[in-house]
Amino acid sequence: MSDRPTVDDVRAAQERLHGVARVTPVYSSETLSRLAERPVLLKAENLQRTGAFKIRGAYNTIAQLSSEERGRGVVTASAGNHGQAVAWAAREAGIAATIVVPEAAPMAKVEAARSYGANVELAGEGFDDTLAIAREREAETGATFVHAFEDPRVIAGQGTLGLELTGQLPTGEAVVVIPVGGGGLAAGIAIALRALRPEVRLVGVQSAACAPFAGREPTGTTIADGIAVKHPGVLTRPILEDLLDDVVVVDDEEISQAIVLLLERSKLVVEGAGAAPVAAILAGRAGGQGPACAVLAGGNIDATTMSSVIRYGLTASGRYLVVALLIPDRPGELARIVGLIAAQRANILAIQHHREGRNIGVLETEAELTLETRDEEHSQLLIRALADGGYTVRRLR
Amino acid sequence: MSDRPTVDDVRAAQERLHGVARVTPVYSSETLSRLAERPVLLKAENLQRTGAFKIRGAYNTIAQLSSEERGRGVVTASAGNHGQAVAWAAREAGIAATIVVPEAAPMAKVEAARSYGANVELAGEGFDDTLAIAREREAETGATFVHAFEDPRVIAGQGTLGLELTGQLPTGEAVVVIPVGGGGLAAGIAIALRALRPEVRLVGVQSAACAPFAGREPTGTTIADGIAVKHPGVLTRPILEDLLDDVVVVDDEEISQAIVLLLERSKLVVEGAGAAPVAAILAGRAGGQGPACAVLAGGNIDATTMSSVIRYGLTASGRYLVVALLIPDRPGELARIVGLIAAQRANILAIQHHREGRNIGVLETEAELTLETRDEEHSQLLIRALADGGYTVRRLR
Repeated sequence: MSDRPTVDDVRAAQERLHGVARVTPVYSSETLSRLAERPVLLKAENLQRTGAFKIRGAYNTIAQLSSEERGRGVVTASAGNHGQAVAWAAREAGIAATIVVPEAAPMAKVEAARSYGANVELAGEGFDDTLAIAREREAETGATFVHAFEDPRVIAGQGTLGLELTGQLPTGEAVVVIPVGGGGLAAGIAIALRALRPEVRLVGVQSAACAPFAGREPTGTTIADGIAVKHPGVLTRPILEDLLDDVVVVDDEEISQAIVLLLERSKLVVEGAGAAPVAAILAGRAGGQGPACAVLAGGNIDATTMSSVIRYGLTASGRYLVVALLIPDRPGELARIVGLIAAQRANILAIQHHREGRNIGVLETEAELTLETRDEEHSQLLIRALADGGYTVRRLR
Repeated sequence: MSDRPTVDDVRAAQERLHGVARVTPVYSSETLSRLAERPVLLKAENLQRTGAFKIRGAYNTIAQLSSEERGRGVVTASAGNHGQAVAWAAREAGIAATIVVPEAAPMAKVEAARSYGANVELAGEGFDDTLAIAREREAETGATFVHAFEDPRVIAGQGTLGLELTGQLPTGEAVVVIPVGGGGLAAGIAIALRALRPEVRLVGVQSAACAPFAGREPTGTTIADGIAVKHPGVLTRPILEDLLDDVVVVDDEEISQAIVLLLERSKLVVEGAGAAPVAAILAGRAGGQGPACAVLAGGNIDATTMSSVIRYGLTASGRYLVVALLIPDRPGELARIVGLIAAQRANILAIQHHREGRNIGVLETEAELTLETRDEEHSQLLIRALADGGYTVRRLR
């Protein structure tokens, strides 16, 4: 539990993972390259089995258990990618797994771990409680506790992603940007690339809301929940301090924009933590020379979150328009307004009426219209058309 | 323009496309395999450059132009994937392209073609007008008109996807399910696979709303706009009639569910036409034996459509709950309701008050609550908690 893995450990992990983990592709992105003003490459690890890199470390650990240990199974505490990865890797190895998840965990994640055949135990109010309960199960049953990052076998497993990059990156200078939560992925990649591609710059990225490696106090929730780890590993921290060139932070707005760009332009579903490297590159924080490769570490974003992020992105790019109109409260008036909007080929998403409030006369009503437009220019055209139609238009969003 | 291409034409196209088009990966999907009760493979052509297979045919055509033809450039009519593909392929070949798009085309698609350096002309009310204008440009300028499917060079180019599949499908029996619009992709794939993998069953899929190959009259719009082609090609039709084993149809609800599954489980953004093969496989319409491979032909889905489809999927799986409560119209009452909901850990998305209407007393108001829940079971728990709190609950959705 205390040794720092070497590139040979990573090579051994790659042999164990052969035919188990996918070698995920690297794609160039024309749009992102134009926006970043440098070539941008995407390591599409969101297409890994279970949707995240975590199976690399989990399987490499489980594959090294003795037959006695295998008989007692494995246990971990996680409501996220690591829990799914341990469940999946245990099934692949043919052993039992218990995944302890907090009581309030989203049902989708519980179901995913269960679908891989794991025994999922809902226990504990917050993560610390859940972890304590998983440690109890370890003591009671003799099952091996599989840590998400604080284990040289896990770090070596994650490092296989770096080994793949040695053959996928173009020759010469480049920068690889890696999300940092507990630090296992970044430590593993750094061990592989420092040994084999020493000219490549290595940058870690954390969410501004939880960036202990960047020396910040946690300030709250973040869309990059996969890297919101308050206490970095005692094993990983010195590796990152030795081997990374820099650790930078990105905020949730930057991450959200990166998620939307990856969806719209690269056709890839990427979770917040996985999109953070793209956000860092677009913000010009990757530094160095040559192409910048973003490690899209995972794609397990909640569908509700995905939908919210898309709507946020559409609003930011002027594709939604919300206006309030004061109109005489009489039949036919709304039909006239709807006609004006239809003539501009905009789509009406919602209409709300307000009859109470300041500045609304007794025979007037205020109609709040939520419209879908092509772009900001189209929004401006619509506002003008409504004003030309004789209405007082107040833009709300 | 009238010859049926051969597998040798497809091989020649593959040489021309080497280093230009991506060899897109094939992934297995555990969740889809479980749902379909047979192994499901995904040919991720949505990850192709420009987000669709169309560049294969467009580039193969442009690469065969004489230097004189190259000097006069190319022209096409398309607001969709084909227009973007011609713009992109012309830029790769270093020649000029004019893309005529209908006036009401989405700005995002116009901008995409423009970003590849094409001259984009907004002209024509509907597609037939736009096509006539593109044919005028052809006559005026001598530019070569690049058809989306009615050209042996285009069909041979699309066939390179089939050539890739010969090495990516497991040996033995299998079925490949291909979206059919104009029929160029299905014809090309069929020519390659019939020659090299004759044991593989080939099934075309069309949208129920527009399925001329399946002998149906068009009935309206469809989420699979990429295959909503009313007049199939005179060149492609006999190829499909000779080489496909079956043509099946799927409806928009089935396609929407396939889009959501591909987003959530496979981390892939796939447009309606591209998701249609998955819908057909899940509906048990692919037939044959062995693994079923869905050709995910494209990923260019509008962000607004993607968001709507996700919300539709969430509602269908019980993740949204809309209820109406009759409550006394007095301060504090809403706070109590919000507290009951918070205790059940549900998220409130919207609250609307109605004071007018049948069955609402003079001192009452009806509160319509839109809630985000974990699943249908959680929705039931919430309804019970509100009823136990003394409210009359009417479920709306």
